Amino acid sequence: MQKTLEQRMVNPDSIDHVVSSLIQTSLRGVDSHGINLFPHYCRAVDAKRINRTPSIIISQTGTSTAIVDADNAFGHHAGAVAMDKAVEMAKKTGVGTASVKNSTHFAAAAYFGFRAADRDCLGFAFTNANALVKTFGAKEAFFGTNPICFTAPLEREGPFCLDMATAVVSWNKINNYRRENRDIPMHWASDSKGNPVTDPGQVQTINPVGDYKGYGLGMMIDILCGVLAGGPASKDILPMYPPKLDSTKRRLSHFFMAIDIDKFLGVAQFKKNLQRIVDEIRVVEPAVAGQKVMVAGDPEKKNYSIRVIEGIPVDDAIFEEFLAISSEFSRTVKS
Amino acid sequence: MQKTLEQRMVNPDSIDHVVSSLIQTSLRGVDSHGINLFPHYCRAVDAKRINRTPSIIISQTGTSTAIVDADNAFGHHAGAVAMDKAVEMAKKTGVGTASVKNSTHFAAAAYFGFRAADRDCLGFAFTNANALVKTFGAKEAFFGTNPICFTAPLEREGPFCLDMATAVVSWNKINNYRRENRDIPMHWASDSKGNPVTDPGQVQTINPVGDYKGYGLGMMIDILCGVLAGGPASKDILPMYPPKLDSTKRRLSHFFMAIDIDKFLGVAQFKKNLQRIVDEIRVVEPAVAGQKVMVAGDPEKKNYSIRVIEGIPVDDAIFEEFLAISSEFSRTVKS
Repeated sequence: MQKTLEQRMVNPDSIDHVVSSLIQTSLRGVDSHGINLFPHYCRAVDAKRINRTPSIIISQTGTSTAIVDADNAFGHHAGAVAMDKAVEMAKKTGVGTASVKNSTHFAAAAYFGFRAADRDCLGFAFTNANALVKTFGAKEAFFGTNPICFTAPLEREGPFCLDMATAVVSWNKINNYRRENRDIPMHWASDSKGNPVTDPGQVQTINPVGDYKGYGLGMMIDILCGVLAGGPASKDILPMYPPKLDSTKRRLSHFFMAIDIDKFLGVAQFKKNLQRIVDEIRVVEPAVAGQKVMVAGDPEKKNYSIRVIEGIPVDDAIFEEFLAISSEFSRTVKS
Repeated sequence: MQKTLEQRMVNPDSIDHVVSSLIQTSLRGVDSHGINLFPHYCRAVDAKRINRTPSIIISQTGTSTAIVDADNAFGHHAGAVAMDKAVEMAKKTGVGTASVKNSTHFAAAAYFGFRAADRDCLGFAFTNANALVKTFGAKEAFFGTNPICFTAPLEREGPFCLDMATAVVSWNKINNYRRENRDIPMHWASDSKGNPVTDPGQVQTINPVGDYKGYGLGMMIDILCGVLAGGPASKDILPMYPPKLDSTKRRLSHFFMAIDIDKFLGVAQFKKNLQRIVDEIRVVEPAVAGQKVMVAGDPEKKNYSIRVIEGIPVDDAIFEEFLAISSEFSRTVKS
């Protein structure tokens, strides 16, 4: 992937973050937000929607606050810059927050959360997205799948990581079902008339998780992202997959926060206490015998342990897209 | 209520916050967290579970961080002190966070959120609680109904306010159904064997909202509250309603945060932009003709406009409790 982006004259920092993010995410088994998106990103660069050589501007507005103008950079890059800035501020004041405007799709929010947890902070990452989630009590969408990610370091393993869309599922997961010609469960989404659908090709809106609660969380996240950044709210953001990609900018907004654990409890003690809780939960009696109880991030840790050895599976349809965007890829070498 | 607390030698600051919180909450129609709780609080003071004259200690550990030892004060009081400290820090650095330990039930989280929004900040309030929510994939509870509250000021009306339990419903709402002898919906809760129940008297655990997502959010909140404060996690917190109240402390933990909007976008512009979004949503075509689409907090605003004129209804069973705890109340004067 690096070579393909280099061929497209993408700047080294962007390449670093895009490749790291997508591979990390696919290794974690989150196929909706991993390397499957790579061909789309290349097309977005070709269409000049994503800026290959952005001038990202960081304005520190308070000792704990910064505004990051992403200049339409890869969201992966802008987000990493912003989270790193948030961590830097957190190490001084205890908390750092960064509002990102004029950005693009940032893939998995967890990628940024891990950057905070790896430096002994609690990490938060949020983004808005184009309107896809059914407004509670209405027929149409107003907010996007607006995810929330929260990370916290553990004593003897990778961080606790909650990374969830505020919709029942992510749009990219529905896309994966469509690609694989599989029906989606009835409660996931609705068609253009607001009726439930199982055909992923007919999906117009996704249902908010927990009805009005997910709808409220999605709005909270758009306030933290779009409104705080002075950027567009979900409803006014262009779709990720328009009929034809062009240079029109999506102007996504993100919000990142890091909290320095050491300002509250010694980091070692915190990790130990949280590890004990995680350990206790994993041995709770399961509802179904043999199906171990897990905490957020456990399925991804399990996937990681397998895929880091066996590799990342890529289905045929996606691989055709890889072949189409770069000579880097070939039938014999699936790099 | 003030007189009743004065008779019990509760300190003036505690009285101020308890009374303000409960009346505000009941006026907003949130009967599960309003004055209905007052008789219980009085019994908890009598049992010495709640400290009537606490020495709350605020330790500022960074320019954006503080630890508040509540000394088993009324949570309403400890929370207000902590949120006010968070706002004070936010006005300097852009963000203020306060972790509260050794606290008690704080009633509606919105009470604290409003204190931030009223000072042109985004407000966050979280608390842990005793284990009541079914662990995803298990039979028993590990985390409490651990709520999240988020507030943001608007241009022409009271703040946007999302205040939600991460369970399908709050425990106090189930108590209200029990008091009113009403069945609860099948998907709300489970009995001691993990089976769904409609009899509120048989409820052992409440279901997390959105299954594993609400479970993950509940754990996130316990990390922010209990773990960060070095206090007990939900599982190790005593129930709000034990068979017999005694002086054993519950040691609840809370987490408050204020973000100064002005460090990101001019406050006037922020309020205008958010107001426009709220206005736009309210005129979206509803799914059911005549049932207006709302944003979080709208039902409470509607209730407030009615109750501030007509008063707060109190059912007979609760009123009997009021009569039992104080001579302040009588059949003829329902103050």
